[in-house]
Amino acid sequence: MARKVLTIIGSLRDGSTNKMLGNEAKLLAPKNLELEIFIPKGIPEYNQDVEDNLPNIVQEMKDKIKSADAILFVTPEYNNSIPGVLKNAIDWGSRPPMQSAWSDKPVAIMGVSTGMGGDSVASSLGPCAG
Amino acid sequence: MARKVLTIIGSLRDGSTNKMLGNEAKLLAPKNLELEIFIPKGIPEYNQDVEDNLPNIVQEMKDKIKSADAILFVTPEYNNSIPGVLKNAIDWGSRPPMQSAWSDKPVAIMGVSTGMGGDSVASSLGPCAG
Repeated sequence: MARKVLTIIGSLRDGSTNKMLGNEAKLLAPKNLELEIFIPKGIPEYNQDVEDNLPNIVQEMKDKIKSADAILFVTPEYNNSIPGVLKNAIDWGSRPPMQSAWSDKPVAIMGVSTGMGGDSVASSLGPCAG
Repeated sequence: MARKVLTIIGSLRDGSTNKMLGNEAKLLAPKNLELEIFIPKGIPEYNQDVEDNLPNIVQEMKDKIKSADAILFVTPEYNNSIPGVLKNAIDWGSRPPMQSAWSDKPVAIMGVSTGMGGDSVASSLGPCAG
């Protein structure tokens, strides 16, 4: 049976080159890997005051993460780190306490850029969700 | 004349200890420093597709940043970095290209935590907006 890889894109824009890279990876993946593209669009701003009543879109994202065998982040770099939009999705995924969707999940990260600095920081730093 | 310090809080929750810290700093500041508290609540998710028509709340935030003499970030640490909510505000502030509100702005960062790890990573890494 194919392993599921949730492929999370860090950029929201329609013409995103990182979205294109994610789609290309989905096409090129070997048959034993099934990539599902996920764009964290419409995820509300994280606020601890509302986490006892998790927004539906956040619960759905957490369910996708939990049911995946692995995570592939495909993300640009903004201001020397991953985009706030992606970090916000990571923060939500890690909450509430002791209910992180990231626990024990293998993660890889890649990205593409048209700039000279490339995507070095986002790809080397990566997210560190416990 | 007092120098203006825009004091940006990284946590949105009402009872935030970092908001309390920011408010305390405002009270303790010497007379030549005027701290204005800013909570980046309701800032939309950054999307390059909409930056040609900057949302009003983003333009207002950029104006606050530009008119400040310095910035003080008061922020918790989530998943070994600054909150996505704060990073998203930083990303917006740096856009569109060549119109960053952060340019030449002195910045300091501090934070408080009830956890054993403290706030070490957010305070040492800091944001790196060009």
